[in-house]
Amino acid sequence: MIDKNEVSAWFKLLQDDICDQLSRCDGLATFKEDLWNRSGGGGGRTRIIRDGDIFEKGGVNFSEVHGEVTPALQSQLNTEATAFYATGVSIVIHPNHPLVPIIHMNVRYFELNNGIAWFGGGIDLTPHYIDHADAKFFHQQLKTICDQHKNHVDYGKLKKWADDYFFIPHRNETRGVGGIFYDYLGKDNTSDLSSIFNFTKDVGNTFAITYTALVDKNRSLPRDPAHRDWQMLRRGRYVEFNLVHDRGTRFGLVSNGRTESILMSLPNLASWEYDAVPEEGSREMETLELLKKGIDWVG
Amino acid sequence: MIDKNEVSAWFKLLQDDICDQLSRCDGLATFKEDLWNRSGGGGGRTRIIRDGDIFEKGGVNFSEVHGEVTPALQSQLNTEATAFYATGVSIVIHPNHPLVPIIHMNVRYFELNNGIAWFGGGIDLTPHYIDHADAKFFHQQLKTICDQHKNHVDYGKLKKWADDYFFIPHRNETRGVGGIFYDYLGKDNTSDLSSIFNFTKDVGNTFAITYTALVDKNRSLPRDPAHRDWQMLRRGRYVEFNLVHDRGTRFGLVSNGRTESILMSLPNLASWEYDAVPEEGSREMETLELLKKGIDWVG
Repeated sequence: MIDKNEVSAWFKLLQDDICDQLSRCDGLATFKEDLWNRSGGGGGRTRIIRDGDIFEKGGVNFSEVHGEVTPALQSQLNTEATAFYATGVSIVIHPNHPLVPIIHMNVRYFELNNGIAWFGGGIDLTPHYIDHADAKFFHQQLKTICDQHKNHVDYGKLKKWADDYFFIPHRNETRGVGGIFYDYLGKDNTSDLSSIFNFTKDVGNTFAITYTALVDKNRSLPRDPAHRDWQMLRRGRYVEFNLVHDRGTRFGLVSNGRTESILMSLPNLASWEYDAVPEEGSREMETLELLKKGIDWVG
Repeated sequence: MIDKNEVSAWFKLLQDDICDQLSRCDGLATFKEDLWNRSGGGGGRTRIIRDGDIFEKGGVNFSEVHGEVTPALQSQLNTEATAFYATGVSIVIHPNHPLVPIIHMNVRYFELNNGIAWFGGGIDLTPHYIDHADAKFFHQQLKTICDQHKNHVDYGKLKKWADDYFFIPHRNETRGVGGIFYDYLGKDNTSDLSSIFNFTKDVGNTFAITYTALVDKNRSLPRDPAHRDWQMLRRGRYVEFNLVHDRGTRFGLVSNGRTESILMSLPNLASWEYDAVPEEGSREMETLELLKKGIDWVG
């Protein structure tokens, strides 16, 4: 087993570090903190940034909650355990610049009172306009980490998991260029939990380095009003994924989670246009054609 | 029984009439039609209006579809029927003026190949700013129709049904001031179906009269940029309701319906702000305090 207090303490440090790095990257806005308690047990630290030089809206949230395993959750987890503990960090950042990508990360630890515990998480990137070099850099960063923990995780498997998870069936589009996604790591063999914790730390630590590199590479590119229109439509798709499909969002909303912390993932502004199809050969159409599963970005 | 071709023919006339009345009300924009076929059987006429003098984005859609009752649908409808037929008109209108309300109507007829058939539908109003007189007029229009068919429907029951249906649990808010909602009318006694069809016709026919009256009453009121910000937030709630809770939208999306026709209900532009709470005593707070179930608007 692993000490859950050690995990949650590390997640808090991660939250501090990421907020610090993102604030410095933005240079204008800082994070505003809200502390909250959960009536069933536990609480969190929600930190929101808005109207920054580059970050239009974003959240870097820590939570640590515990409580009863409801019958619905027992069925979902296929367990007879009666109490759970969960802690994690969740991040979504919506930049104001159409050529800077949206990013999401979640790292979490889950423990049941029957001794079963596991880690889950992932990072995925949603460029409004896909840039091959950026997608390759992003995936290479994740592959490097996975390769350093290859006794425990496989980049190809976690990359496919993200392709399958961050998919919008009613649009037949992936949300973006994917990344890695994993769940139940360490569940079958709890002796590996400390190794999985080390992997989780490396995932968490690469977030700010990787994202600020992508922000700084693109933030000075010229802005075009047509790019902004497309950005709003892509944000509309992000809203559709999160509200219709994302398991975490839906579970949070129906299980009486803290709505404002859950829906910090939604953009400041999004749009929908009936049957908007980009012109053949446009950069928008090029992006649309790359929103597919199974692309080997690193290769 | 009832002749389904008679029902669908009437729904097409209703669509024509509503598009005609709304176009005249707008005075600038007209509806653009898309005809579509469903691979499983049937199709529809989607009609979209946008960038009008008063209608920023809206759809008035007719559809007539038929096909196999899948096991999931058999379970949902608690039936062993193997084929279904459904026809109806669905409308959502998002005005550009914050003091003109959003409106939604759906009227539909459903038939199974075991002889069971029914009508469903409803109209509900979502003002960005609630005006008591408008809400009273709107509900009075609906009550008058229900009272004319009191052997078959009860306004109080259908009004409560709308309160319960158009509710956003994760916000603890109703979507707007409600209206009426009904389903499975005539299912238990198919000899009543022609009476329910007559009720449905009266509901359909009141839509344009009632809504254009509300539009014309408010469209010349002064516009305030702060009102527009609040309108965007209320539209965000509309998106949340439709994507997270609305049974029709979710059923359509997971059952491989025509995505563009289903999501015509989403606004051109919507926003989300973290923990946006209006000032005490403001008109925004007054509206928020009226987004509750059980208000007797007519009384």
